[in-house]
Amino acid sequence: MPRKLKATVRYDGTNFSGWQVQPGQRTVQGSLEEALATIAGQPVRVIGAGRTDAGVHALAQVFHFEWEDAQAADTLIRSLSKMLGPEIRIEAMEEAPETFHAIADATAKRYAYVLSNAPYPDPFADRYAWNLSHQIDQSRFTELAQRLVGKHDFAGFCSSGSSAKTTVREIYSIRVIPGPVVGPNDSDVFWRVEFSGNGFLYKMVRNITGTLIDIARGKVSEERIDERLASPGPYMGYTAPAKGLFLVEVSY
Amino acid sequence: MPRKLKATVRYDGTNFSGWQVQPGQRTVQGSLEEALATIAGQPVRVIGAGRTDAGVHALAQVFHFEWEDAQAADTLIRSLSKMLGPEIRIEAMEEAPETFHAIADATAKRYAYVLSNAPYPDPFADRYAWNLSHQIDQSRFTELAQRLVGKHDFAGFCSSGSSAKTTVREIYSIRVIPGPVVGPNDSDVFWRVEFSGNGFLYKMVRNITGTLIDIARGKVSEERIDERLASPGPYMGYTAPAKGLFLVEVSY
Repeated sequence: MPRKLKATVRYDGTNFSGWQVQPGQRTVQGSLEEALATIAGQPVRVIGAGRTDAGVHALAQVFHFEWEDAQAADTLIRSLSKMLGPEIRIEAMEEAPETFHAIADATAKRYAYVLSNAPYPDPFADRYAWNLSHQIDQSRFTELAQRLVGKHDFAGFCSSGSSAKTTVREIYSIRVIPGPVVGPNDSDVFWRVEFSGNGFLYKMVRNITGTLIDIARGKVSEERIDERLASPGPYMGYTAPAKGLFLVEVSY
Repeated sequence: MPRKLKATVRYDGTNFSGWQVQPGQRTVQGSLEEALATIAGQPVRVIGAGRTDAGVHALAQVFHFEWEDAQAADTLIRSLSKMLGPEIRIEAMEEAPETFHAIADATAKRYAYVLSNAPYPDPFADRYAWNLSHQIDQSRFTELAQRLVGKHDFAGFCSSGSSAKTTVREIYSIRVIPGPVVGPNDSDVFWRVEFSGNGFLYKMVRNITGTLIDIARGKVSEERIDERLASPGPYMGYTAPAKGLFLVEVSY
């Protein structure tokens, strides 16, 4: 019986075509599978909790895999680190119960979307935040966001191309917090929106953020929220850029 | 009589071959001169306070240039921003006295060298810090560093290739401060060494940092400091990597 290992991984998504393996593309899952296969001498399948898109980052993505060998987790982390390079870091690795599944067992996921308001983007944050040259009314943004909290059919906030079986999800909370996730630690310029929920559809966080910002900027009316919640999908509207999004935590 | 303009500029040095114009290389000075020349319709020479090396960053580099046209500084910043892209940001621009000179008039410069101590480098800090997998005794580092404070002939800490007329410089202070300049704001892992002085020779900050770290790691003895201070140069020893260095401030 192979071991089941659970690992937490941090990555800068800028130069990856997202998490999921795609032929001919450099992906995080692909990089992990390739490194593990090199160590194992046979193919290894990695299952990640969240399929982050191209350019999306992770502070703590979780994945599991089956492993035949007996080496200690620390030894495996050391071998992997040599192969993965600085863009991906294994934060932790531990034995998991045979039945553990990174997707099925997740009880909550937390994402942060980082925004900045400056006339021109900060050179040290351009990979990690969406800069809006105009000020945004954050209290209005927060108020509007609360309409999305709870259990809803989010089909109208799901981009086309999703393979989800159901489009019903529960958002536990949406909070606005001063400061960035990474980059210049300037809480006058950077702020982030933290989404906690039992799961998020394809581009759902970026679509919600795009819609709320468009309302806050006066580009669309606030009725847009109810309209999208009533829509069978797919999402029509502005999608916030990938670079501002971080997968922050997966809870089990 | 042309106007004289003084500007402050922030840049991520990762993908530049340093500040100074070099044929066939992408440099910060070169990018600024090219953008200004496009606007002016004639060559423009830019004089920067500090010639940062390839990979070195700046929070607030200062430069001056002569300008024939009458447009407001804000208008010029807007035009430049469109051409420069996100890696370089003009922070401020103002009229300066006819006699102002970015190098000659500088009274102090401040550099920060960022270090981290983690088993593996953070993906979000790899461009902005030198990671040492072993812990460094920061109080010993600080104590050793104080021997370099004051007016000395720093020829022994100057890399070959310098064109400086004199190798005497005065270091006003060397301080150890918790936390990074940019990146994950984790003050348990990141720390920085701030150097203030009337000027720094070619690679002097990186050479001093490299020597102090080598002493702190026990690779060389602390006598190395006096030995380098007594040497006519050039520097022999370890040079800390460019990516950890930031030009923080130029005073006038």
